[in-house]
Amino acid sequence: MRKPYFPSNENAPLPLRVTVERRVRFEEVDPLAIVWHGRYASYFEDARNAIGEKYGIGYIDFHGNGVVAPVRIMHIDYHLPLGLNEIVTIEGVLHWTEAARINMEFIIRNSKGIVSTTGFTVQVFLDGNNELLLMRPPFYREFCEKWRTGQIG
Amino acid sequence: MRKPYFPSNENAPLPLRVTVERRVRFEEVDPLAIVWHGRYASYFEDARNAIGEKYGIGYIDFHGNGVVAPVRIMHIDYHLPLGLNEIVTIEGVLHWTEAARINMEFIIRNSKGIVSTTGFTVQVFLDGNNELLLMRPPFYREFCEKWRTGQIG
Amino acid sequence: MRKPYFPSNENAPLPLRVTVERRVRFEEVDPLAIVWHGRYASYFEDARNAIGEKYGIGYIDFHGNGVVAPVRIMHIDYHLPLGLNEIVTIEGVLHWTEAARINMEFIIRNSKGIVSTTGFTVQVFLDGNNELLLMRPPFYREFCEKWRTGQIG
Amino acid sequence: MRKPYFPSNENAPLPLRVTVERRVRFEEVDPLAIVWHGRYASYFEDARNAIGEKYGIGYIDFHGNGVVAPVRIMHIDYHLPLGLNEIVTIEGVLHWTEAARINMEFIIRNSKGIVSTTGFTVQVFLDGNNELLLMRPPFYREFCEKWRTGQIG
Repeated sequence: MRKPYFPSNENAPLPLRVTVERRVRFEEVDPLAIVWHGRYASYFEDARNAIGEKYGIGYIDFHGNGVVAPVRIMHIDYHLPLGLNEIVTIEGVLHWTEAARINMEFIIRNSKGIVSTTGFTVQVFLDGNNELLLMRPPFYREFCEKWRTGQIG
Repeated sequence: MRKPYFPSNENAPLPLRVTVERRVRFEEVDPLAIVWHGRYASYFEDARNAIGEKYGIGYIDFHGNGVVAPVRIMHIDYHLPLGLNEIVTIEGVLHWTEAARINMEFIIRNSKGIVSTTGFTVQVFLDGNNELLLMRPPFYREFCEKWRTGQIG
Repeated sequence: MRKPYFPSNENAPLPLRVTVERRVRFEEVDPLAIVWHGRYASYFEDARNAIGEKYGIGYIDFHGNGVVAPVRIMHIDYHLPLGLNEIVTIEGVLHWTEAARINMEFIIRNSKGIVSTTGFTVQVFLDGNNELLLMRPPFYREFCEKWRTGQIG
Repeated sequence: MRKPYFPSNENAPLPLRVTVERRVRFEEVDPLAIVWHGRYASYFEDARNAIGEKYGIGYIDFHGNGVVAPVRIMHIDYHLPLGLNEIVTIEGVLHWTEAARINMEFIIRNSKGIVSTTGFTVQVFLDGNNELLLMRPPFYREFCEKWRTGQIG
């Protein structure tokens, strides 16, 4: 049993989950015939984008609100390798936090449905002057409020 | 003998040449143990950047003059493969043209000095509104004038 | 009207065409907010793979027959840029040739269906000792025979 | 003060350190004009390779000994962004461990020498059948013995 990447909180709303599919390309595979470890950030990003689009909290939405949300931490645990042409699913899990952060977990499953890779990222919010925001920006707070009150999920 | 990528003109100033070195990374090598064919644009770009910096006609210079110079044509001939850790040289050759274009040829030589890859790119000039410039922008014309009159080279 | 990349021959069977879809990722977009020119080889490859899978002439099939088919020429014409999140189609067109080559043309259309990028690749056949094959390998000749006689297409 | 990525042990030999230089390429920079977070694995790898070459414990050495050493954990902390053309140094730090693991820390400093990015990787050893080795392979143990007894460093 993996230790949770983010501490759970029984008062928090349930995480939001989105799953996307992707197929391993020839160019992603290294001389050992497996996906090179440095390419998984792209896999995670596919799920991050899917969450962003589904809930209106993607790169474009941030940009429209004068905010950027750079990744501050990325962590990857490689359990099983992925091979050429393998069709994988990437599950992105948005975890609740009261902090001015975006906490996402990622779970990649191989073509047999077995967990191949897990990891997480933490994003922060910067304003137009690249200053760290200590509070969540208004549009993101609104999203969180809907999430907390069960209007989305 | 390779056919020249750009027609020669006996009245034109001699091409400008810059050579850079690069080492093949593990992540660039495919399951066949050679550099994946799609990665050579990055190798060409190293030489393009070196020419840009040496002569003040790089991305930053264009940007400072309100111009972009996107690649309109790229052509690559693959003669010999490159392998892991191979140290290669990339020669960039800027060919003279009267047109509002940047014509560059590239020659990659492997660790034995044998030509491995050749190719060329053609760039055009766009103004701040992404309109094609039919004449070379002033700062680039000045560079060309110095080149033509032997002040650089 | 573009000039054809490959000479047409009225006695040749019609080209085989496969179209795939792809969405521009954040990581593919450069500081000018367009897909960096060096990334299009990956787009072409998506269509190449689709042709390979549909007709049993992909990387895996070559490998199973002791043959590799490296790209010897790649040519790209950039007509219009592609932007973030744009959904594009990539059409791969396999052109008939009697030579021991694989001639493919590629046509990328942007989200409005307008041709954004075109290009071609030429692949050759190598045997297990990396020697150039002057004749098409048997399994590929069989495929061509079916193509020529209208059994596929 | 950052918390150490690996627990220190006063009886362990001092870490081994190698520093390499790299310049940010245009293609690595995203629409926000900073290096996309997913590209740092490549930066870390440059230092990993330098350590491998300096001490004879690189990919080629593993391969020659019938071993592979895949990355099992990668962690990255992004402190400050990197911009176009920035010349950075990447310090790789090999930390001592008695376990059948390779523990490396990475420190990227920007052109002003300020720490921009830190992180670590943990690699394990697999034999030719992809079975996890519970003991360090002989050639790596020999290297460790020299390290421990001060013959290298």
